[in-house]
Amino acid sequence: MTGGAVNMKTYNVGLIGGGFMGKAHSLAYAGMPMFFWPAPAIPVRHTFCDVTEELARSGAERYGFAHYTTDWREIVDNPEIDIVDISTPNNLHCEIAVAAAKAGKHIMCEKPIATTTEDALRMVNAVKKAGVKNQLAFNYRRVPAVVLAKKFIDEGAIGDIVTYRGSYMAGGDTTSPMGWRQKKDIAGYGTLGDIGTHALDLARYLCGEISSVNAMLKTFVPKRPLFPGSADLHDVENDDEVSVSMKFKSGAIGSLQASGNAWGRNNYISFELYGTKGAILFRYDRRDELQVFFSSDEADRQGFRTISTGGPVHPYGNGLWPIDGIGIGYGELKIIECYDFIKSIAEDTPSVPDFYQGYVICRICDAIAESSETGEWVDTDYTE
Amino acid sequence: MTGGAVNMKTYNVGLIGGGFMGKAHSLAYAGMPMFFWPAPAIPVRHTFCDVTEELARSGAERYGFAHYTTDWREIVDNPEIDIVDISTPNNLHCEIAVAAAKAGKHIMCEKPIATTTEDALRMVNAVKKAGVKNQLAFNYRRVPAVVLAKKFIDEGAIGDIVTYRGSYMAGGDTTSPMGWRQKKDIAGYGTLGDIGTHALDLARYLCGEISSVNAMLKTFVPKRPLFPGSADLHDVENDDEVSVSMKFKSGAIGSLQASGNAWGRNNYISFELYGTKGAILFRYDRRDELQVFFSSDEADRQGFRTISTGGPVHPYGNGLWPIDGIGIGYGELKIIECYDFIKSIAEDTPSVPDFYQGYVICRICDAIAESSETGEWVDTDYTE
Amino acid sequence: MTGGAVNMKTYNVGLIGGGFMGKAHSLAYAGMPMFFWPAPAIPVRHTFCDVTEELARSGAERYGFAHYTTDWREIVDNPEIDIVDISTPNNLHCEIAVAAAKAGKHIMCEKPIATTTEDALRMVNAVKKAGVKNQLAFNYRRVPAVVLAKKFIDEGAIGDIVTYRGSYMAGGDTTSPMGWRQKKDIAGYGTLGDIGTHALDLARYLCGEISSVNAMLKTFVPKRPLFPGSADLHDVENDDEVSVSMKFKSGAIGSLQASGNAWGRNNYISFELYGTKGAILFRYDRRDELQVFFSSDEADRQGFRTISTGGPVHPYGNGLWPIDGIGIGYGELKIIECYDFIKSIAEDTPSVPDFYQGYVICRICDAIAESSETGEWVDTDYTE
Amino acid sequence: MTGGAVNMKTYNVGLIGGGFMGKAHSLAYAGMPMFFWPAPAIPVRHTFCDVTEELARSGAERYGFAHYTTDWREIVDNPEIDIVDISTPNNLHCEIAVAAAKAGKHIMCEKPIATTTEDALRMVNAVKKAGVKNQLAFNYRRVPAVVLAKKFIDEGAIGDIVTYRGSYMAGGDTTSPMGWRQKKDIAGYGTLGDIGTHALDLARYLCGEISSVNAMLKTFVPKRPLFPGSADLHDVENDDEVSVSMKFKSGAIGSLQASGNAWGRNNYISFELYGTKGAILFRYDRRDELQVFFSSDEADRQGFRTISTGGPVHPYGNGLWPIDGIGIGYGELKIIECYDFIKSIAEDTPSVPDFYQGYVICRICDAIAESSETGEWVDTDYTE
Repeated sequence: MTGGAVNMKTYNVGLIGGGFMGKAHSLAYAGMPMFFWPAPAIPVRHTFCDVTEELARSGAERYGFAHYTTDWREIVDNPEIDIVDISTPNNLHCEIAVAAAKAGKHIMCEKPIATTTEDALRMVNAVKKAGVKNQLAFNYRRVPAVVLAKKFIDEGAIGDIVTYRGSYMAGGDTTSPMGWRQKKDIAGYGTLGDIGTHALDLARYLCGEISSVNAMLKTFVPKRPLFPGSADLHDVENDDEVSVSMKFKSGAIGSLQASGNAWGRNNYISFELYGTKGAILFRYDRRDELQVFFSSDEADRQGFRTISTGGPVHPYGNGLWPIDGIGIGYGELKIIECYDFIKSIAEDTPSVPDFYQGYVICRICDAIAESSETGEWVDTDYTE
Repeated sequence: MTGGAVNMKTYNVGLIGGGFMGKAHSLAYAGMPMFFWPAPAIPVRHTFCDVTEELARSGAERYGFAHYTTDWREIVDNPEIDIVDISTPNNLHCEIAVAAAKAGKHIMCEKPIATTTEDALRMVNAVKKAGVKNQLAFNYRRVPAVVLAKKFIDEGAIGDIVTYRGSYMAGGDTTSPMGWRQKKDIAGYGTLGDIGTHALDLARYLCGEISSVNAMLKTFVPKRPLFPGSADLHDVENDDEVSVSMKFKSGAIGSLQASGNAWGRNNYISFELYGTKGAILFRYDRRDELQVFFSSDEADRQGFRTISTGGPVHPYGNGLWPIDGIGIGYGELKIIECYDFIKSIAEDTPSVPDFYQGYVICRICDAIAESSETGEWVDTDYTE
Repeated sequence: MTGGAVNMKTYNVGLIGGGFMGKAHSLAYAGMPMFFWPAPAIPVRHTFCDVTEELARSGAERYGFAHYTTDWREIVDNPEIDIVDISTPNNLHCEIAVAAAKAGKHIMCEKPIATTTEDALRMVNAVKKAGVKNQLAFNYRRVPAVVLAKKFIDEGAIGDIVTYRGSYMAGGDTTSPMGWRQKKDIAGYGTLGDIGTHALDLARYLCGEISSVNAMLKTFVPKRPLFPGSADLHDVENDDEVSVSMKFKSGAIGSLQASGNAWGRNNYISFELYGTKGAILFRYDRRDELQVFFSSDEADRQGFRTISTGGPVHPYGNGLWPIDGIGIGYGELKIIECYDFIKSIAEDTPSVPDFYQGYVICRICDAIAESSETGEWVDTDYTE
Repeated sequence: MTGGAVNMKTYNVGLIGGGFMGKAHSLAYAGMPMFFWPAPAIPVRHTFCDVTEELARSGAERYGFAHYTTDWREIVDNPEIDIVDISTPNNLHCEIAVAAAKAGKHIMCEKPIATTTEDALRMVNAVKKAGVKNQLAFNYRRVPAVVLAKKFIDEGAIGDIVTYRGSYMAGGDTTSPMGWRQKKDIAGYGTLGDIGTHALDLARYLCGEISSVNAMLKTFVPKRPLFPGSADLHDVENDDEVSVSMKFKSGAIGSLQASGNAWGRNNYISFELYGTKGAILFRYDRRDELQVFFSSDEADRQGFRTISTGGPVHPYGNGLWPIDGIGIGYGELKIIECYDFIKSIAEDTPSVPDFYQGYVICRICDAIAESSETGEWVDTDYTE
């Protein structure tokens, strides 16, 4: 029996934040080399940071980190750390990211990029100046079926896109308690920032630049309890319902809805996309499938093909499970995201989507909010 | 063996137009008493009108009418005729309907009501003055599953409606030839008038009055051949793509898309409707089902219920097929429509939806067109 | 205005039985020429027969027949009648059919053909001797999607069939009352005869001859009330659950289940069919679709195609609704069946499926029952 | 910054086999505490074994093990090792398991348990004698939706089960090369052993003991190439198609199909289950859902409920992702399996399913094979 010598390049990761995303990212770091082998490099779970000593200590044990701290600056300042992973609430992204960039760390940051467009721009400038890799966790564009959709679009198999209908529906429970996502200073936008940004990222990924928007932002549930069942109601400070009409630079049009009021829908991300030669349908609860219609098919054999995307010919197919239909979940999705990030560092290629893309989404969110106020169509000007 | 004495009240029908709708309405008149028995009255296929002698004669034989004519005025003027059925292209609706109303005939008219709002208003005034029953063929609101949706909404089972997403997607083939529906003087609006009006009728039926709209009307295919394969291209004179943001009087918001460019979608009518207590989903290709989510269900048993609407407890269940799951098609749908119309005459109750509702839809279409021009939100003022 | 001269060939129909099937067949006779035009001939609803004077008289009015009677012999003996339509309970099929054949009438008969194989054979011999057209109403093989499946199989697009899984699931309510279908002398087999025979017809239509079976027939609900809610329970005399393993002559294997105990399933007919080059899936509640997998598709574009079968390129497409997605129901299905039957008379071609096919199904049912008794595989010997 | 002291109980794992299952199990050991926290104990990836030095060394690095070896006996003999994980081809299970049991190791073993029933029995006796925990990796019974199905059955919400229809469909490509699964001495049964055993485990888990079977085992593809595209064809030594009729001890009946010839189906596991009070449907490609019909629902609200099983009220809901709809894949499924196994060790409760259950499945497989030979129904006698 032999001790396992590590022969591959490794990157030490400092992860900040032990919530839903801390868990997801930890799994990704652990699992990535198991799937994508030989790995471009192996991420090593070095230091974990959470807000209390107890959370930090137990989090390190839970998530498999060798060290822990309650001060994120210890991570940023540690020369052993190669990657800073920001899985905190939105309002902390900017300060941490700017500091990490200055310290020369590569950065994986959860979405949305920041609570304000100004902060987003500061982050963009910081990473540009530092020349570090920076990736924003719009993970849904990495679902193999979504990547396959992009491939068909890029191949021209669907023709020119005419119409796009996107949605991200969730929630419904008007009595569910306040969280930090309902507070403007911590979250920025509400449903728009949380899930609407994912939907916008998908729309841009597939259809290209959005040139103008007309939108409605609503807060249908203006007060929520602090705790489940509590009679003590607090003001919700941001939107819970988003409806957007879009014009793309290409000439295509689209609509997009993000809802925090959709009973029965659970993380329901969907798009329909119609082009001059075909059409594509996707829904995340059928994440191992893409439905594609090719008008070039013979007349008696035309129909949406439900393509199972788990096989080796499909995006990431050589890294994921070896048998089609075995199925991926959120864990595998975050593993894919981690793989692409680590690869972009190891191979010194651009991380996608980067902070700049997150900043553009911020600009679009602002345009959406402005349109909701004025009723006007608002151009989405991306110039810095 | 005994000759069949007709004991029930009968109404003589004069049907004008032998296309798709002439066929559908003929089947409805023949089949209605077979389904809904005892029938409120029996419609008798008396006279059929089409544009040429040959079409009129063979149409009468095909559709089971005792007489035929090439002059619709003979129908309007015939004192034996009780009901005038207008299944012509849109531009003829107004003249025929006004004449039929003056002659005291009850009128079944295909949608959209007319090519202009002015004509629609003339029709409304004519039937009001004459006191005749008048029904517009927005048949999709009569799908039993849609009526069940309305029942749940009216019962309050879904709570207050928050968001509505409607669509009517069709077409795709950019080389399909011109028809009368692409000519402004015959059809009025294009995709908006043809299928968008159905989608608007569903939205209003389920969610109530629309108070304002912001919309895009597009013509993505500006030229089409006169015949399949012809190189001789003609200008398309109206829209083929419609995207509408809506505000309802109730405070709910919504979006609606109608497309003539949707490869792979075939008469694809759908809606998603989210309320404070539940949600409802419908798609016409699953027309024997309604999906409903009740938040009042126990936590471990919550989920969209796929309710099969073919049974006797469901709308029109005593008249349709006696076994759930036997399934209805467009034929049965038109039979339901015919039943409601004949019943409204026999029982002297309002026909629904009537010409006034068709006129309101015209007003909304005009608001949609105006918004598409100006980019502004346009109030939909229904005052005559 | 001109009286409609009938110029086409007509056949006078005498219809016996005013239940579910009497209604369906009446609609079919009325609607067939509306759909399939020019019609091969026009069926005329001449005489209707039901068990009481009142049912016969009102049925004639309801279903649009010129005459009525309570004695089916008056139909068989009437020289004006061309077609006898047998829509009675199963036990009457044989006597009527034999008499009708002797009288030289063409015969449309509901399924199953008879309550015993002996009766079925008598019917086969009678129509053979008389040389009259005879069709058995296994209507589900006429669903356009099923015909499309057959086309793909015959073209070799699926390769050699390996495995077939069929089901026809219904029922569930153990308290639903006795009907004639639960009585052996009126119905013959229970669930096997009622819906199992449809499933067997589909299996043979698609996969060819069945060479042997191993089966279970069960009666899970041995007693049922005579009326809903009644405490007076009577013995159910035949099966309510059928499970069959099959070997086809081709070498393929299969299974088939028919259930009267399937809560939540409503007339749920389905099949899955796997061949050496592809696969086909069908379910009747999605009757406007066929799902087909072609292994010849490129690797990154393989997937079940959901082919919408409502268009003109598909079976019966020129006769049905002119727009794909408009959708068919049971009414349209029976219109298709009527069309094929009338056409076989007018063109003097074989009616399909004929009484002989119904007799073969009887033989297979007997083999199923024998296997259920003995536990053995039983060859299905079709020799008369 | 503090070094992470491990405070929890740990178990050292020795994993043998670096294929598909080695990868899946490694992810499970790494991820389990991230999901289920506080974990019952933390599995530590101690030693990895594969057949060559290079595979063993790189596998250790890839899967995160501290040591590696090419001799599984070093794992069995190492006193530091608590758990032996057998992820090898089937023919090695018995020897390793018996040795591991003798050495007092707890054992996680992939399915099927062994290539022969005799070996399975040896394994059962060895672990019984040693008193070690032993679990067989029938992971599909751990899908939360399947556990929810079991809960509803156990609660009586479905009533007495009447009929069960199970399937596990895969494959299709007749030119795909030979693997060890097609060799009798390495795999034992073919499709029956590989995926049929999963389907049998689900049937027994949900419906209880199987008392007798009638079955067909077929080899539709008798020769396969050794390498993709090779013309050198070798004999397939076991079955590729399985069809089973079953009688359960409860009186229910069922059918089950497992196919290696099902084009278009990818790891397609499904069941339909009908009881006297309701019904349950499941398909693995919709693994985050269970469809349940309760006959106790009000008549106008009856329908299959599509229950999204990702929420905290559902099985394993407190350990999996915190938001319903985020979705699980095979990774999360193996993490659940690992959790239950580690918990059974830490809390000294029975591991489920254990080797004995695997042995019972072997007996049923033998009965299936015997029935396929003789055509007879064969009792499945579980007595050792």
